[in-house]
Amino acid sequence: MSKRLVLPALTRFVSATAGRNMTTAAYVAVAAGVAMMTLLTVAPAHDAAPRWVDALLWACLAYFVFEWLVRLRHMGRQGKFWFYALSSAGVVDAIGALAVPVALLSGVEPKTAWLLGVLWVLKVVPGIPGLRQLRRVLVVESGPLLSVLVIFLMVVFLASVAEYFLERDVQPQTFGSVPAALWWAVVTLTTTGYGDVVPITPLGRVVAAMVMISGLGVFGLWTGILATGFAAETRRDNFLRTWETVSKVPFFAHLGPAAIADVTQMLRTMDLPPRTMIIRKDTNGDCMYFVAAGEVEVDLPGRKVKLGEGEFFGEMALLGNAKRGASVSTSKVTRLLVLDLVDFRLLMARHPDLAETIDAEAKRRERENQ
Amino acid sequence: MSKRLVLPALTRFVSATAGRNMTTAAYVAVAAGVAMMTLLTVAPAHDAAPRWVDALLWACLAYFVFEWLVRLRHMGRQGKFWFYALSSAGVVDAIGALAVPVALLSGVEPKTAWLLGVLWVLKVVPGIPGLRQLRRVLVVESGPLLSVLVIFLMVVFLASVAEYFLERDVQPQTFGSVPAALWWAVVTLTTTGYGDVVPITPLGRVVAAMVMISGLGVFGLWTGILATGFAAETRRDNFLRTWETVSKVPFFAHLGPAAIADVTQMLRTMDLPPRTMIIRKDTNGDCMYFVAAGEVEVDLPGRKVKLGEGEFFGEMALLGNAKRGASVSTSKVTRLLVLDLVDFRLLMARHPDLAETIDAEAKRRERENQ
Amino acid sequence: MSKRLVLPALTRFVSATAGRNMTTAAYVAVAAGVAMMTLLTVAPAHDAAPRWVDALLWACLAYFVFEWLVRLRHMGRQGKFWFYALSSAGVVDAIGALAVPVALLSGVEPKTAWLLGVLWVLKVVPGIPGLRQLRRVLVVESGPLLSVLVIFLMVVFLASVAEYFLERDVQPQTFGSVPAALWWAVVTLTTTGYGDVVPITPLGRVVAAMVMISGLGVFGLWTGILATGFAAETRRDNFLRTWETVSKVPFFAHLGPAAIADVTQMLRTMDLPPRTMIIRKDTNGDCMYFVAAGEVEVDLPGRKVKLGEGEFFGEMALLGNAKRGASVSTSKVTRLLVLDLVDFRLLMARHPDLAETIDAEAKRRERENQ
Amino acid sequence: MSKRLVLPALTRFVSATAGRNMTTAAYVAVAAGVAMMTLLTVAPAHDAAPRWVDALLWACLAYFVFEWLVRLRHMGRQGKFWFYALSSAGVVDAIGALAVPVALLSGVEPKTAWLLGVLWVLKVVPGIPGLRQLRRVLVVESGPLLSVLVIFLMVVFLASVAEYFLERDVQPQTFGSVPAALWWAVVTLTTTGYGDVVPITPLGRVVAAMVMISGLGVFGLWTGILATGFAAETRRDNFLRTWETVSKVPFFAHLGPAAIADVTQMLRTMDLPPRTMIIRKDTNGDCMYFVAAGEVEVDLPGRKVKLGEGEFFGEMALLGNAKRGASVSTSKVTRLLVLDLVDFRLLMARHPDLAETIDAEAKRRERENQ
Repeated sequence: MSKRLVLPALTRFVSATAGRNMTTAAYVAVAAGVAMMTLLTVAPAHDAAPRWVDALLWACLAYFVFEWLVRLRHMGRQGKFWFYALSSAGVVDAIGALAVPVALLSGVEPKTAWLLGVLWVLKVVPGIPGLRQLRRVLVVESGPLLSVLVIFLMVVFLASVAEYFLERDVQPQTFGSVPAALWWAVVTLTTTGYGDVVPITPLGRVVAAMVMISGLGVFGLWTGILATGFAAETRRDNFLRTWETVSKVPFFAHLGPAAIADVTQMLRTMDLPPRTMIIRKDTNGDCMYFVAAGEVEVDLPGRKVKLGEGEFFGEMALLGNAKRGASVSTSKVTRLLVLDLVDFRLLMARHPDLAETIDAEAKRRERENQ
Repeated sequence: MSKRLVLPALTRFVSATAGRNMTTAAYVAVAAGVAMMTLLTVAPAHDAAPRWVDALLWACLAYFVFEWLVRLRHMGRQGKFWFYALSSAGVVDAIGALAVPVALLSGVEPKTAWLLGVLWVLKVVPGIPGLRQLRRVLVVESGPLLSVLVIFLMVVFLASVAEYFLERDVQPQTFGSVPAALWWAVVTLTTTGYGDVVPITPLGRVVAAMVMISGLGVFGLWTGILATGFAAETRRDNFLRTWETVSKVPFFAHLGPAAIADVTQMLRTMDLPPRTMIIRKDTNGDCMYFVAAGEVEVDLPGRKVKLGEGEFFGEMALLGNAKRGASVSTSKVTRLLVLDLVDFRLLMARHPDLAETIDAEAKRRERENQ
Repeated sequence: MSKRLVLPALTRFVSATAGRNMTTAAYVAVAAGVAMMTLLTVAPAHDAAPRWVDALLWACLAYFVFEWLVRLRHMGRQGKFWFYALSSAGVVDAIGALAVPVALLSGVEPKTAWLLGVLWVLKVVPGIPGLRQLRRVLVVESGPLLSVLVIFLMVVFLASVAEYFLERDVQPQTFGSVPAALWWAVVTLTTTGYGDVVPITPLGRVVAAMVMISGLGVFGLWTGILATGFAAETRRDNFLRTWETVSKVPFFAHLGPAAIADVTQMLRTMDLPPRTMIIRKDTNGDCMYFVAAGEVEVDLPGRKVKLGEGEFFGEMALLGNAKRGASVSTSKVTRLLVLDLVDFRLLMARHPDLAETIDAEAKRRERENQ
Repeated sequence: MSKRLVLPALTRFVSATAGRNMTTAAYVAVAAGVAMMTLLTVAPAHDAAPRWVDALLWACLAYFVFEWLVRLRHMGRQGKFWFYALSSAGVVDAIGALAVPVALLSGVEPKTAWLLGVLWVLKVVPGIPGLRQLRRVLVVESGPLLSVLVIFLMVVFLASVAEYFLERDVQPQTFGSVPAALWWAVVTLTTTGYGDVVPITPLGRVVAAMVMISGLGVFGLWTGILATGFAAETRRDNFLRTWETVSKVPFFAHLGPAAIADVTQMLRTMDLPPRTMIIRKDTNGDCMYFVAAGEVEVDLPGRKVKLGEGEFFGEMALLGNAKRGASVSTSKVTRLLVLDLVDFRLLMARHPDLAETIDAEAKRRERENQ
């Protein structure tokens, strides 16, 4: 009976969120499912698991099957059935929905079949925030990273054959074949060092020492490559984010990408501690400011106005009104983007359409202030 | 009797330093307390600890309780009672003062109760110099770092289920459940490699090798992200420090933050070995110098004047007096900030109020030289 | 009989590819050879290996011998016999061809002789894509890296003598001599930590803790050096690659290296998401674009033209035709190189021969467009 | 008798090299001494070492004593006796000369006394090339590095008390006291992981997992800090080296440091592959080149002149002779420093004394060419 009530509600809920990647409900289901799957293996080998563990597992599975079916229907209605079904998200959803049932139906022992529930964690992947950035670093630096991997494998092979030759007579149990020595080489070169297989002949130890030092080198190269790639990616990301800030500002809304890129490169960032005076009233202004992060306080007669991220001030100085009309100071640690009069003029010379935007903006602002 | 003498003195001492974060006395108390707590556990299980260990522990505890109470009183008088009591420093002080007594009073065995004394090390945190910088790196890079952590956890989960499946029949003792396999996965992926749990089936070892290599990758990403964040933080820090140097120079005292930022960006740093001639007498000067670090020696007629950090020289060249009046050379490894005449003129054009500052400074200097 | 047919075909095939470093066939042979060599050691000690393993090993060896001989002949005909024979590639080929036969002929046990087949992996080295870059980093940073290695060795020596002194009486088996302690020190300083040799005296553990922390430091220095070197190498590589893009553009074909370097430094990169408008028809143009990566779509009347890597657009704006003739937008994630009119003019002023190139190009383009 | 011949020769030899840090002889003596000291410990505990080992050890010791005495005399004659005796090099020499004899005379067992010979490796320190650079990185970054160390120690303390509490009842042998748990914590946090002490309770393993992940974080921070510091140091070093190249060029010999700094910043580096044409004869020249590394070939009529590191060409273009007189191409991978005519003019405007230098140089060159 409860199922008759739950099913339509669930369908409606999943339907409503079918467009999004992951809902809180899905996160909860993944966490619960994987936790139950883990619990299932803790129970003594031939005992049945507690009823509630089983019940929760079936509930999670049901949720994922429903989610998948509802998404398929939802996408089908939008004519994107195959696009979704074959996309990586669709494939992950399909695996999450089908892996366990298929295993159960093929006669795999239930405890083993439920292990496939671990694949549900793959559903989390699209929700990881910085993943795209990481993937781009891995793609951009794939050449050097692959080189290091090949060097890694070559050291592993050469070292394991050498150790096999040196240790096989003394330790036939652990160094009795090249694959066994390969296991030792990987454990050593990654500096994991389980200690289950250890060379004991003097020459074998010299080879092992060289492998360990190579391990440091491989580690260093790997990290160096990733650090370099990550720094470049961060720089590019920052540029794009500054750009986004710029393009959100009404002032620059009608500019083309090239002009925005120009503006982005002309802006200079300024990190200020809290309670620092930025503009003093009645001084001569020569630049305008955008708040990239933090908050500033404009000290208008009779009231204080707070300006947050994305807002700007001091633009009157660029529109002919040289005297600053109000003091402005930071109220938090603030990052400002500063556009100097000089750069602003240069920008206008390069992009004549900007002049009109500015005139319009100047008039709108003046009307507002009155 | 000694207590009657010690208490008021202690109160006075702590009172006097209540505003500061940490005193040498507090450091000594933390070190002594933690050392005694450690010693306490070395003694045979059911023996009483030596009297002096106990005495020192009680003394440290008393110090921390006093410190907390005195600070509460001190802050209460300034009307900041709750501000302090609920600040992180206040909470750490409260924990340091109360954790052990509360445990003792709730009937916990003394030896176990004193273990809470390890929380005293938290009092050291505000005194760590570069901590703020580190924290900002962690905050700024939290997105990518969290992504790597999620990837880390996913690899751990997938690998441990795979190993559980592959090894459970051969090693039911160590791979008998997914949590046991999770332990192995964390130990392996961090390349710690205790060796208490080691896969022995060929397929299990292949999976383990892949986990180890992933461990290198996770390590590399993590380090790369932190290195990038740290580099950016250092750059920002340097800018702020240069700025501070600039704003301390009387020459620029009356400039607004924007002008100071301008100056900061126009300055170029110059690292010089000791005993290098910077200015030769009677040559034409075209720039002025600020000593950012180190020391220079001005070779005035009849005497040598040493200029240290924050001082400046060669400014006469910017004030119309083109011929250098004295030779200047470094006496230590010195970092100079150089301001070229060209940039200086540009600066003046942008900030007309600077001209007056300069005229005033020129006159003051000339009077002084006469 | 089959040999009579195979040999000439093989000779022809190897001949045809003698100039190249590695063929797919060679990669297959290396992989098969090393795999078989590994399999050979898995068989029980005194049993003969399966016939097909032996056969494949001999086939691989035969391939490498043939390859070497054919290359020698091929190079001999071009008068480069000794150049090749003594080059690193030639030496690796010779080792691959001769090591196993020489070992077999000198009476080494076959199973051991075939182990030398692992040297075949060295043939892969020239084919690794980023290896040159890695090698240059190692060469450029060899000074600091060697310093770290010397520091590493000094810590290893000092620590192992200290541990020998502290542990020799308690653990004569494992710390009974300085070489044994050296083994411990290397295993510890690289943070491998097998656990086969572990200090147990309190002082010994303090020394060991310091060695481990030094290990972190050595690791950090090593990585820091490599990361720095790699970043510099990447920057240089990027410059050279941008340059290459520039020199491939017909527009700049006749420029000298200095002018190309100028162009390279004047270009600014712009990363754009897909479906972004770059040029709007009938607006005023002030810059031209080169497609460094990705693809753009020119919206000509009646048709859409796609421009890929290395192609350029918007150059009419630099040749006097200020109004943009067509809209251009990205169709993929695209990296553009932007050359501003200002920089372009500067470039022309510096390199008068560029003016003629431009006039010629302008006329060619206009003829083409009509 | 042989001693009578050897001593004076040795004295003369050491005398001659007393000013230098390390001679090849000293390196050999250090290597031989440390190797013999190591060998000494390999011999069975109560056996005497072979005579030649003993003899070599005494010879090395004699060398170091002589070296020290001769240096003391040499420095004494120059009036720098105490300066040397108390310098770090002097103290290391004194320790090398006195440690073993003093130990032997105080009745320490010979085998143990000779262990102090390991201190001879300290004599190698001043000879390590990049050590100064490494030390400066460590000094500059000491603040953040210390912070990380303090964090490291805090994690170690908190984790070991937690593990002691959680594991002491289950494993009284290995987790029976906080110092024992500290050993575990250091071994784990550095990811060494001997495996001699391993938590077995579920909660203990959760704490251990967090310690391992913190270990990755500490590692990453450490490396990030060192990488950042190293990058900055390399940049500064490069600037100083470019500067040195510039100041060695006769052209700039008479410039002051400020002008040289200007030149250094105006120069742009250009990395060229071999056999690239740099200057084409009879084209218009607009810049001059300095060879920073590699080699170029000037194609003069009838002969080819090779120019190596530190030499320059194309300077005629800066001295009024606009047409290039000869083609120049690279013969190796070459790094050039390029000075553009524009920058050169700017430089002359800023430093009028440069004009005279140039005129003199122009005349000298023209005389030479005729």
